[in-house]
Amino acid sequence: MPEAKGLEVGKIVVVFEPEGKKIVVKSGATILEAAKNAGVGIRSECGGEGICGKCKVIVKNPLAISELTEAEKRHLSKLEIDSGYRLACQAHIKQSVVIVVPPESRIGERKIQVAGLERYVPLNPLVKKIHVVMAKPTLSDVRPDFERLIDHLRDRNGFEDLEIDYELLKKLPDIIRSKNWAVTVTIWDDRKLIDIEPGDTSNELFGFAVDIGTSKIVGYLVDLTTGKTISIGSIENPQIMHGEDIITRIGFATGSDSNLEVLQKLVINGINQVIHEACRKAKVNPNKIYEATVVGNTAMLHFFLAIQPRYLALSPFVPAIKKSLNIKAKNLGLKINPRGNVHVLPVIAGFVGADAVADVLSTGILESNEVSLLIDIGTNTEVFVGNSEDMITCSCASGPAFEGAHIKHGMKAVTGAIEKVRIISEDEVEYEVIGGVKPTGICGSAMIDIIAEMFKQGIIDSRGRFNLKIKTPRLRKNNKWTEFVVAWGDETATGKEITVTQRDINEILLAKAAIYTGCSILMKRRNVKEEDIDRVYIAGAFGSYINPENAKIIGLIPDIPTRKIEFVGNTAITGAKMALISKEMREKANLISKKVRYLELTMDPDFSKEFVNALFIPNRNINRFPTVKKLLKRLRKN
Amino acid sequence: MPEAKGLEVGKIVVVFEPEGKKIVVKSGATILEAAKNAGVGIRSECGGEGICGKCKVIVKNPLAISELTEAEKRHLSKLEIDSGYRLACQAHIKQSVVIVVPPESRIGERKIQVAGLERYVPLNPLVKKIHVVMAKPTLSDVRPDFERLIDHLRDRNGFEDLEIDYELLKKLPDIIRSKNWAVTVTIWDDRKLIDIEPGDTSNELFGFAVDIGTSKIVGYLVDLTTGKTISIGSIENPQIMHGEDIITRIGFATGSDSNLEVLQKLVINGINQVIHEACRKAKVNPNKIYEATVVGNTAMLHFFLAIQPRYLALSPFVPAIKKSLNIKAKNLGLKINPRGNVHVLPVIAGFVGADAVADVLSTGILESNEVSLLIDIGTNTEVFVGNSEDMITCSCASGPAFEGAHIKHGMKAVTGAIEKVRIISEDEVEYEVIGGVKPTGICGSAMIDIIAEMFKQGIIDSRGRFNLKIKTPRLRKNNKWTEFVVAWGDETATGKEITVTQRDINEILLAKAAIYTGCSILMKRRNVKEEDIDRVYIAGAFGSYINPENAKIIGLIPDIPTRKIEFVGNTAITGAKMALISKEMREKANLISKKVRYLELTMDPDFSKEFVNALFIPNRNINRFPTVKKLLKRLRKN
Repeated sequence: MPEAKGLEVGKIVVVFEPEGKKIVVKSGATILEAAKNAGVGIRSECGGEGICGKCKVIVKNPLAISELTEAEKRHLSKLEIDSGYRLACQAHIKQSVVIVVPPESRIGERKIQVAGLERYVPLNPLVKKIHVVMAKPTLSDVRPDFERLIDHLRDRNGFEDLEIDYELLKKLPDIIRSKNWAVTVTIWDDRKLIDIEPGDTSNELFGFAVDIGTSKIVGYLVDLTTGKTISIGSIENPQIMHGEDIITRIGFATGSDSNLEVLQKLVINGINQVIHEACRKAKVNPNKIYEATVVGNTAMLHFFLAIQPRYLALSPFVPAIKKSLNIKAKNLGLKINPRGNVHVLPVIAGFVGADAVADVLSTGILESNEVSLLIDIGTNTEVFVGNSEDMITCSCASGPAFEGAHIKHGMKAVTGAIEKVRIISEDEVEYEVIGGVKPTGICGSAMIDIIAEMFKQGIIDSRGRFNLKIKTPRLRKNNKWTEFVVAWGDETATGKEITVTQRDINEILLAKAAIYTGCSILMKRRNVKEEDIDRVYIAGAFGSYINPENAKIIGLIPDIPTRKIEFVGNTAITGAKMALISKEMREKANLISKKVRYLELTMDPDFSKEFVNALFIPNRNINRFPTVKKLLKRLRKN
Repeated sequence: MPEAKGLEVGKIVVVFEPEGKKIVVKSGATILEAAKNAGVGIRSECGGEGICGKCKVIVKNPLAISELTEAEKRHLSKLEIDSGYRLACQAHIKQSVVIVVPPESRIGERKIQVAGLERYVPLNPLVKKIHVVMAKPTLSDVRPDFERLIDHLRDRNGFEDLEIDYELLKKLPDIIRSKNWAVTVTIWDDRKLIDIEPGDTSNELFGFAVDIGTSKIVGYLVDLTTGKTISIGSIENPQIMHGEDIITRIGFATGSDSNLEVLQKLVINGINQVIHEACRKAKVNPNKIYEATVVGNTAMLHFFLAIQPRYLALSPFVPAIKKSLNIKAKNLGLKINPRGNVHVLPVIAGFVGADAVADVLSTGILESNEVSLLIDIGTNTEVFVGNSEDMITCSCASGPAFEGAHIKHGMKAVTGAIEKVRIISEDEVEYEVIGGVKPTGICGSAMIDIIAEMFKQGIIDSRGRFNLKIKTPRLRKNNKWTEFVVAWGDETATGKEITVTQRDINEILLAKAAIYTGCSILMKRRNVKEEDIDRVYIAGAFGSYINPENAKIIGLIPDIPTRKIEFVGNTAITGAKMALISKEMREKANLISKKVRYLELTMDPDFSKEFVNALFIPNRNINRFPTVKKLLKRLRKN
C-alpha cells in the first residue's frame, strides 16, 4: 500500500474512521479537503467557511492538527473541545492522523443544497447606519427633533428629503435625548429612517436572504458591514403538510378563506425559525436585521404574501403581480426589526419565479455578451437562453419523476438512495449510495445514469423499450411489467431487489423530453444553435448531482461540450443574497424581470413535434446530438 | 305696535315662540334670517347651508312657508315633517307666521364655531377614482393582474409607476375578476392604488377634514367629486377628562407609558364619532372616505399621533416634528377606508401648530402682496405679520382669562353668559346674555366690553385701577377687593350679583398685554407700522364675538381702522378642508410651515419693555393708539 510506505518517506496519511478510508495529503490541508478527496461525506452547508458548524469531527491525536480557530471556539462546547472535536473545515493537518466522523456530521438525510455560485459584487446594501451627534436645541435654535436630525444628515451626510417611519417617530423625542443627542440612525434606501438607537451601534447591521423552496427554506444571515454570510439556517418548508407540490397547495389555499392564511403563517413561522437558528449560531440579535430579501417560485411567493393564488393554477396561469415589493417586516410578522424592510424579488411569470430571477442574477447571464443556456431543474424546470441583447425563458412541466415520484423504487436524494450507477455489462452493475449504506431505492441522478448506461449497452432502444433479446438474469418480464435489476436483494437494506421498470423509463423520458423541449424551442426562438452557446448553467439542488455526459446521452440537455457546462448549485439563495448586499443587483433583478421575455411553451407551434422527438433517446432527430451519435457508432461497432 | 299694524298693510310678521318676539320681514326671507334680526338665537353650525341640520324649528301654519327642500328631507324624519318641523335656514317665509324654536335648536351650551372663511380653490384632491375595463388575460397575453391594471392606467390615464397597498394586492385577483374585468380604482397622489372595487363606483369619493381643538373636535365631510362640504360633525374633545388645558394633558401623558396611548385613543374615538355623525347625516359609507386631513395645535397633534409630548412643555419647547405626515388610516385606527390616507398638516413650532398653518392657508395671507396681521385668539394666541415676501409668527401666552378662567364671575361663552356690555353711565349698564336667559356670569367678549366701557367712563384709569372717587352703588370696596357690579342680584339666574373685580381686570390686562406684545414685536421685527397693515384677520371662535372697537380701546389689538378688520371664524377647519380638496393647497401648507419664520417672543430684547407698556390701557405709549387717544380727548372734554 502506498499509504503505508508514505509514513516512511515523510508523507502525511489521514485515516477516516469508522470506514478506515486512508488518504495522503499535503501538510496544511484541512480535514474537510482530505475527506472530500477520500470520498468521505462530511456535512458542510457553508462550503467550508466555519459558519455552519456542521462539519464536527473527532481527532484522535490532537497534536497532529493546527490550533483551534475562533470559528471553532464559537461552534464547539467546552466538553466537545475536551473530547477532541474539531471543525473539519477549520482544522489543518500537520501530521498523519486518525479522524472519526461522527454520525451527525455525515452527509445523511437529504442532500440540502444551501450554497450556490456567488459572484463578487461591491457592497452597497440599501440599509445604512450612521452615527450622529447633534447640536442640542436652545431658545435660539428651536428646530424640532426630526428636522434637527435630518438637517444634520443632510448637511453632514448628503441625505435629502428623509422620511421617518411613524412608529419610530413616536419614540424619537425620548431616544434622541437618552444619550446626550448622540444616536445611530438606520436609513433604508437613502430615504427612510427605520431605526434610531442611542449611542453608536453602527457596527450592528445585518441582513437576511431567504429562498422559499417548495420543499426547503434556506436563509443566509449576512453582515451588511462586510457583505459576508456569517451563518446559515434551513428547514423543511412546513407547508408540506398541505401538499408536497404546488398544485396541491394551491388547491388547499383556495379551499377556504382561512386556508391561505394558514399557508402564509406556516411559511412565515418557518422563516422565523430559520432566522432564529442563524441568529443563535452567530449570536446576533434579530432586531439588528434591518432588511430581508426573499425569493421563491411564484406560487411560494403568493403563499408567503397571502395573495390569492387560485389563478396561477388556471389557464392562462397569470400571477397577481410581477414586480418586486417592499413590505414592512411587522406587517408580515417576520421576526427581524419590526420596521425593517422585506424585499420580495420580482417574478417573470406564473411558473418562472423570483428564484429563477435570482439564478439569472447569480450567474450574470443577462449582463454577458456570451450566449448562455441556464436550466434550473425541479418539478417545474425553468430554462433561459440568451445574452445581454435578448433573453427568453420558459417553464417546463418536468414533473416530480427526478424527485423519485411515480418511479417504482424511486426516492429522494436522501441516505440510502442509489445516486450514481455504472453498467459495466448486462450482468454487471456498479452503484454508489448516499451515506455509504445499503441501498433502499434510486434517486433522480441515478435514473439518468441507468437509462444512459442501459442505452449504451443496448439494453434499451432509442424509444426506451427493453431489448428482450438480451439474455441476462437482470432483465426480466412478468405479466405486468418488464424490468431491469439494479441491485439484488442481498445487496439492499430491505432485502428486496431494486429494479427499473419500463414504466419508470417512460416517466423519466417524459420528464427529460419536457426539459429538452424547453431548451430546444427557446434556442429556436432565440435563433441560436448548440455551437452558438458559450456556457450552460445547471442550477438547483438536483442539477448538482447529475452526470452531464449521461444527461446528454439520454437527451435531457442539448449536446454541448461538458467543458462549457457549469453546475452552480442553489443560485436562488445566492441571488437573494446579492440583492441583499447590493442596490445595483436589486435593480438588475428588476431589469431581469422586465427584460427577459417569457414564452408560453405549450403555445409554441413547434411544441408538440419537438416534444415527441424528445421522447426518444437522445432524440428522434439524432443529428442534434452529434457526440452521442458518434459515441453510439463507436459502441455499436464493438 | 308696528307689527300689529303691519298685518293690515300687508306686511309679513313673524312671531317667535316661546319668547313671543315679533319681527317684520320681507317675503322670501328665511326663518333663520328673521330669527337673527329678531335676536332669537337659533343654532346654525353650517352658516345656513342646510348641511348641519341644527336649525330645526316648528312652523305653526305650514302654508305660510315655502315647500320642503332636499336638505330638509335629508335632515328631518317623517314624524318631524308631520309635526311641522322645518330647517330655519331652508324655509322661506311667504306670509305671517308663528315659529316655535325648540330647546334643542336654541343657541345653547357652547357657541361652537364650526364654520370659517373659506376661499374658493379649484378642486384637485389627492384621491381620484377611475373606472377601468381591462382586456382579459389569454395564453398570448399573460401579463399579471397588477401589471395588466397599471398598464391600462398608464396607457389610458397617464399614470406612471403606480404602487399598490400590500393589503389590497392580496385581494386583487378576486376583485378584478368579480365583475368581468371592470373595476374602479382609487389612486392616492397619482402614485398608490389604495382601493379597487368591482364595477363603477367613481361617484362615491369622499374626504374628511378634522380640526382637533383643545376643547372641541370639528369635522367636515366633503364630496371630493364636487368639493362641497355635505355634512358637519362636532364633539367636545374627550381628552378634557384629563385636563382642560394643554399643559395639564401633557402632564398626564408623561405620567405613565400608557397614558399617552389613552389620550390618543380618546381623541381617535372622538374623531371616529364625528365621522360617524357626519356620515350618518349625509348617508355616506365611511369606507368611501379615502382621505382625512387633520389640523390642531402642536400638542393636540402629538396626542393624536401618540408622539412623546413631554418636551413641548420644557424649554426650549421643541416639537418632535414639523413637516406634514401621511399615515395609513388603519395604522391610526381612524374609521375611514382602512387603506385611506391620513394627512396631518405641518406645524411651525411647539406653540404654533397646524391649526395656525390652516389659518394662514384659509386667509391666503402668505400669497398676498398686502401686509396682513392675523391673530388667532385662544389660550395660546398665534399672531402672524407679513405678506408673500416675508412673514413672521409667534405664540403669545394669553392664558385662559378670555375663556373665563381666573375671573371671579367668568365663564365660557355658553348659555347664561353675559356676552356684550354697554355702560351708559356709572349707574347704567346694558348687557346681552347668550340664550336670552338670566345671566349667570361673564364671558371673555363681555370682559373686553366692560373694561373698555369702564375706561371710557373713567371708572378705571389707564392702569386698570378703579377710580374710587366716583360715587355709584355699582362701584364698591370691601376688605378684600374692589369691584364693579355688572348685574344686580334680581337680574341674575342665581340671585347673586355679577361683578368685575380689580383682580379680574388685572387678569384681562395680562392676557391682552401678551397678545398685543406679540403683535407689536412682530410688527417691529417685520418692520411694519399700523398704517402699513392692509388687513387684520381675527380668527378663532372667541375672536368672532369680540367688539373690535373695544378691543382697540383696551389695547388688545393694534390701532388699525375697523374697516380693515375681518372676523374669519374657524379657519383651522376650513384650511384643513382646503388641503383636503386641493393638492396645491397642501403644498402651500407645507410652504407656510417652511417659509414663515418663528420668533420666540420671550427671547426678543424688547419683550419685557413692550409687555409692561401693554399692561396699560390702551398702552403706556398712547401714541400707538391715535384713534383711542382722540376718543379719550373727546370724552374727557365732555
